[in-house]
Amino acid sequence: MAALTSQLFPVQTVDLPGGAEPIVPGGRHLFPLLPAALDGVRKIGVLGWGPQGRAQALNLRDSLQGSGIQVAVGLRAGSASADAARSEGFRTEDGTLGDWLAVAASSDLVIALVSDAALAAHHQELFAALRPGTTLGLSHGFLVGHLSQTGGDFPAGISVVAVCPKGMGDSVRRLYLQGAHINGAGINSSVAVHRDHDGRAVERALAWSIGLGSPYTFGTTLDSEYRSDIVGERAVLLGAVHGLVESLYQRFRLAGDDPQTAYERSCENVTGPIARTISADGPAAVRDRLDPAGQDVFDRAYAATYQPAFDVIAEIYDEVDSGNELRSVVLAAQRLASRPMAPISGSPMWAAGPAVRARRAERDLAVEPFTAGAFLAVLTAQVDLLAERGHPWSEVINESVIEAVDSLLPYMHARDVAYMVDNCSVTARLGARKWGPRFQAACEQLAFPAFDGPGDPDHRLVDAFRKNPMHEALATLAPLRPPVDISV
Amino acid sequence: MAALTSQLFPVQTVDLPGGAEPIVPGGRHLFPLLPAALDGVRKIGVLGWGPQGRAQALNLRDSLQGSGIQVAVGLRAGSASADAARSEGFRTEDGTLGDWLAVAASSDLVIALVSDAALAAHHQELFAALRPGTTLGLSHGFLVGHLSQTGGDFPAGISVVAVCPKGMGDSVRRLYLQGAHINGAGINSSVAVHRDHDGRAVERALAWSIGLGSPYTFGTTLDSEYRSDIVGERAVLLGAVHGLVESLYQRFRLAGDDPQTAYERSCENVTGPIARTISADGPAAVRDRLDPAGQDVFDRAYAATYQPAFDVIAEIYDEVDSGNELRSVVLAAQRLASRPMAPISGSPMWAAGPAVRARRAERDLAVEPFTAGAFLAVLTAQVDLLAERGHPWSEVINESVIEAVDSLLPYMHARDVAYMVDNCSVTARLGARKWGPRFQAACEQLAFPAFDGPGDPDHRLVDAFRKNPMHEALATLAPLRPPVDISV
Repeated sequence: MAALTSQLFPVQTVDLPGGAEPIVPGGRHLFPLLPAALDGVRKIGVLGWGPQGRAQALNLRDSLQGSGIQVAVGLRAGSASADAARSEGFRTEDGTLGDWLAVAASSDLVIALVSDAALAAHHQELFAALRPGTTLGLSHGFLVGHLSQTGGDFPAGISVVAVCPKGMGDSVRRLYLQGAHINGAGINSSVAVHRDHDGRAVERALAWSIGLGSPYTFGTTLDSEYRSDIVGERAVLLGAVHGLVESLYQRFRLAGDDPQTAYERSCENVTGPIARTISADGPAAVRDRLDPAGQDVFDRAYAATYQPAFDVIAEIYDEVDSGNELRSVVLAAQRLASRPMAPISGSPMWAAGPAVRARRAERDLAVEPFTAGAFLAVLTAQVDLLAERGHPWSEVINESVIEAVDSLLPYMHARDVAYMVDNCSVTARLGARKWGPRFQAACEQLAFPAFDGPGDPDHRLVDAFRKNPMHEALATLAPLRPPVDISV
Repeated sequence: MAALTSQLFPVQTVDLPGGAEPIVPGGRHLFPLLPAALDGVRKIGVLGWGPQGRAQALNLRDSLQGSGIQVAVGLRAGSASADAARSEGFRTEDGTLGDWLAVAASSDLVIALVSDAALAAHHQELFAALRPGTTLGLSHGFLVGHLSQTGGDFPAGISVVAVCPKGMGDSVRRLYLQGAHINGAGINSSVAVHRDHDGRAVERALAWSIGLGSPYTFGTTLDSEYRSDIVGERAVLLGAVHGLVESLYQRFRLAGDDPQTAYERSCENVTGPIARTISADGPAAVRDRLDPAGQDVFDRAYAATYQPAFDVIAEIYDEVDSGNELRSVVLAAQRLASRPMAPISGSPMWAAGPAVRARRAERDLAVEPFTAGAFLAVLTAQVDLLAERGHPWSEVINESVIEAVDSLLPYMHARDVAYMVDNCSVTARLGARKWGPRFQAACEQLAFPAFDGPGDPDHRLVDAFRKNPMHEALATLAPLRPPVDISV
């Protein structure tokens, strides 16, 4: 974990199930401290204009307005994003828009947000462009994993830090804007100091995180961040949601539901009332608010789903930890060079989405106990697995609960799950395609048959859910972010 | 490819799409030549009593009866299979049953058929037990892959050969017994000479293959065998069949079929009339015998399924080729040490199997054109991918067509696909669990929506099927095995 000490920003200690962890609360009242924390940084170069690149460039520019620190966007030659960056006010003429290597060479803090594939292919060029003393910033651990596999290393004479928002770029920008009215609104970030060349790395990284609008910043290592991030997006953040709702939809359809009803009981339920309840009041509230009959269904669905989901997540973890998952991404990128990824939005359930969204205003959708039990089993399995593998609890909770209910599920609610899967990073898209079907099969072949079969549910699993330390951790962590409007 | 020359057995050249390949026809009339080919071998040790171990030990003992060459079975201490081996006449007292390392140390040809996990964990002990001059025999390439990943190597002073039957152990024994009445009945094998210590490796390997009852033996390398074998069982031999029939069953159920009808149109159709037609008359006959309306459905299902299936198989190939797949197996074996693999037979479709099998006698099930088009798309995609990656055509055809229709599908027809998946090697079970859901998702999310959507099918794909070189290759290779009763 990064040693979260700061001469400038107040550090707070929170009691979590794994022990005390230091965190740094954010908020706009801290923006005047950013220039001091960024002492020596005259220019910040944000490389890439994906959702994270756009959000981070805009947030940092807004947060540093009037400070004299310039925020520039660097794009690869011929990038289709140049017009979009220009339309947000980044200009070649004033040096705030340029070739990515030129921007990297002229910046003191270089935030690399190009795609994983581009980073894998071109990081040597980037490294060569960095001046000694530069702070290289990452927003997830892909490059560290890639370097460790290819036997590469960062160049000497630079600092390497990471600030990893626990939410999509879209949410990073949207909630930041809410921060104008609700101080501290935003997406939490983890921070890791991989290499501290001049003793300034922690303050710079914290300034970057606070400048993005993080309600609070917690410490991790790039290695821990990398594993939890890749596992999370393959499991409860994306892949598992996709597989789960596909299997639930088919189950409800086979039981006689019409398409819209089946969609409401599956996908709409997860991204709507279940996500909203967890965001506002935590996972326990989902079960507590059901009537006794609903709680019974919840318990049986939970007990039937927990172990199959845990087994898939444990497999994902091992695949990520061993480097297999990253090698798969690189191999897939080679295949994708000759044929684009096929969409996953063709299965019948997605056709029901528009009609369901159109009739939302007329309906007050209740939590479906079966869906809730299955979804919370997946979520809790991820919490348990990450905790078992030694991740800090702030990371466990953010990666398994807060990122899901504050960022990804609301986005899926606005579009749909398939749209989300087809519009995130290539690494995440590949992961969801690879693991979503595994969760679907785990539900269809193991969880649902166990629910339908004879025999009592394993009440120890339900008890373990009710006593899970995540509730306590969330009770500590959730109030640290102000109430925000998660709807998209 | 192994240099298939022999001083003892007639070598034949067959013209295949990739060029001429030497093969060695088998048959019981060649059994009298086995002792000469095995010159210097007084004892053959078969290690392990899985389906392959049992079949190979029994076939070799029968084939070498009266030759003076002893066939012994070696088991690990406390093996639950000792009683089964004894009941087949292998005895501690006469040295034909013993501890696996003792049998290895006392044998001149040591055939290692213990599980992949056991081989991964204990091959060093085995290597230490082998005397100089021993010929070590393998029946697939797992160990070679494992050694190349762990930086290990075979010991000096031994020969290493492989004879790889292109069928389950059960079929290797069952068709061999048919060979008593139909000369040459059996399961084809590939042969590879990995290291030839004394110039005797090819003759010994051919003797082993002919002694197993191989109708013909073709040449390959252990590396090529390894890749095609692992890919094949993850694709059309096992994993793809499972995923395909799960998706087809759900499709037919959602369209209104009762469970038995949906089962007959999906699983029963693949393992029954489709497999039988291909075994007897080749893949083209499946389409040719449909009426025009059926051919239209076949063509549309084929065109919709081919590319999604090809993409999954290409991914499997890359994962195997990169070593990822083997690392996954080793990681899974570690997890399985604390919790056994969950069965996959719980999904609703398998409950319909017994009733369908019970009413077989009353019904003459016709080929379902939709199912046939989808299945043949998967099969052809595997043929095309393996050929594209440079595998010898005899290997391509055996691994994609003959092994499926002569061995695995008949076995699945007798039990069911889920039973088969849950009762094969751990490596294959893991592979089917991993990739079956990917084929299911490819069907549900890509192939079936394409079939149901507007637009004409891509007739070029159907033309490519009709002109596929596999038909010509099968026309050459299929007659080299005598007509056998594939039913189990």
